[in-house]
Amino acid sequence: MFPAKVWIREVGPRDGLQMEKEFIPTERKLRFINSLLEAGLQRIEVTSFVSPKAVEQLKDAESVVKLLKTKGQVEFSGLVMNEKGMERAVEAGISEVVVVISATETHSLRNGGHSIARSLQRMNRIAGIGAREGIRVRGAVAVAFGCPFEGEVPVAALDGVVAVLYDAGISQITLADTAGLASPVQVKGIMSALQKKYSNVLWGLHFHDTRGLGLANVYAGLEEGVSLFESSTGGLGGCPFIPNAAGNVATEDLVNMLHMMGIDTGIDPAKLLNAAGELEDMLGRSLSSRMLRLHKSACQ
Amino acid sequence: MFPAKVWIREVGPRDGLQMEKEFIPTERKLRFINSLLEAGLQRIEVTSFVSPKAVEQLKDAESVVKLLKTKGQVEFSGLVMNEKGMERAVEAGISEVVVVISATETHSLRNGGHSIARSLQRMNRIAGIGAREGIRVRGAVAVAFGCPFEGEVPVAALDGVVAVLYDAGISQITLADTAGLASPVQVKGIMSALQKKYSNVLWGLHFHDTRGLGLANVYAGLEEGVSLFESSTGGLGGCPFIPNAAGNVATEDLVNMLHMMGIDTGIDPAKLLNAAGELEDMLGRSLSSRMLRLHKSACQ
Repeated sequence: MFPAKVWIREVGPRDGLQMEKEFIPTERKLRFINSLLEAGLQRIEVTSFVSPKAVEQLKDAESVVKLLKTKGQVEFSGLVMNEKGMERAVEAGISEVVVVISATETHSLRNGGHSIARSLQRMNRIAGIGAREGIRVRGAVAVAFGCPFEGEVPVAALDGVVAVLYDAGISQITLADTAGLASPVQVKGIMSALQKKYSNVLWGLHFHDTRGLGLANVYAGLEEGVSLFESSTGGLGGCPFIPNAAGNVATEDLVNMLHMMGIDTGIDPAKLLNAAGELEDMLGRSLSSRMLRLHKSACQ
Repeated sequence: MFPAKVWIREVGPRDGLQMEKEFIPTERKLRFINSLLEAGLQRIEVTSFVSPKAVEQLKDAESVVKLLKTKGQVEFSGLVMNEKGMERAVEAGISEVVVVISATETHSLRNGGHSIARSLQRMNRIAGIGAREGIRVRGAVAVAFGCPFEGEVPVAALDGVVAVLYDAGISQITLADTAGLASPVQVKGIMSALQKKYSNVLWGLHFHDTRGLGLANVYAGLEEGVSLFESSTGGLGGCPFIPNAAGNVATEDLVNMLHMMGIDTGIDPAKLLNAAGELEDMLGRSLSSRMLRLHKSACQ
């Protein structure tokens, strides 16, 4: 019933760090990414190629990418919102990008500055550049499970965005619960419908833990056979364009649940806690993932 | 598939407060219980009739019970471990008690000072007193999903305890994940087996959120049709005889998930947040439930 192996895409260096106000030196970011690699993470979203005015923390995107050490099958990716970002990504030499499209007009305007239709046109041009330059283009749908501005997202609206991504030849699509509004029942309903309709897409799920439902939603996704989840070490993260945004599901809590369920992740939990400790040192504050807190209390 | 209505038993006044070192005056405890009643909670575990040496915080058990205002269908209960506690409960005039039996010998010895067999003998005598005095006796099985001392709990061992409770005429049984070791898959397996075997028991589930799996485990229980869950306002709680114990699932997070799933609880979420605020005032510190944090950040 459940997938035997689950892929985890760590989004901490991108989704996690983008909310941090104080600039973190590039070499420290790299040290964090390297400790994630040592823990066995094979998919890492390392940065965003967006305007430094919008997300100053990630203004060193090119430098981060240039300093990455490729390691076996590791897939590093960077977020792009438009052609300019894609050109920067090409220039930096990253092999995978993710294009984010919002499922609602209001979030689309606030997050990317354009309507959904306009963003999808840009996505098509980005996919074209990707095909020409040999860069894999993934898709992500923001506020896929609910929008803080518009409320419920009709499945037809979500499907409308997915259909355009699919028609552009995109075969990896992440649905992001940007505002932490998803419920397990909703996850099951949506994944059941979309997986039937688009059976040759590798689906990913990305939950924020705003209401504490992150792992319950992952579990619902697993029941539908979803085998790729995005998470952030230490439960860091949030969207700058979502009021009261909370962090992602913590990678160490996700790995723990999967291992408890007998599902293989290829990740070493002890080394992952080291990476989380590295992140705490880097940020100069404690993080709130359950496994990190448990680890610390057990060490005392 | 899911139950249309779910009962929530608030265990904050007992499981939540028992870990608090500084004694909380009885009238403050009552104020907290009253705000829970105002929020619509109809099942509340209000205290423990255990030795004040073991849990000093609850040494005012009799006073708490005597000051309770009965209100409609509300079921107040107190925890008892032995005949002496049961006699105190009778004297205090509470209408329901819960007897806790551990699923493993090591936890049984540490938590209650006796073997499982001895505890079950005492439970039988307590059930006898209950029958004579017209006090409803519920059962709870501690470390039902895993023990920090013994590791995995064989289903046969769990079933062995359940069978004795059942034979004593107990028709409400809570399985408690005292150390937060349960996984959703395990919950499904155990609840499927036990509900088939003991179809006329009202099953309750009680999860600690030690590893962040509390709500995922609730969801798995709901999928098996379980309709009673125990939780603690603010996510307070922990077992004094469990190393690095973490709190219960937070009542406000549980209510939010159930309401998002369209399941009726009879509880008013806004008034519940008031009760959580009352609890914070009482303890003089912030609590970490997601809904409380979200509420506060939204208020700022």
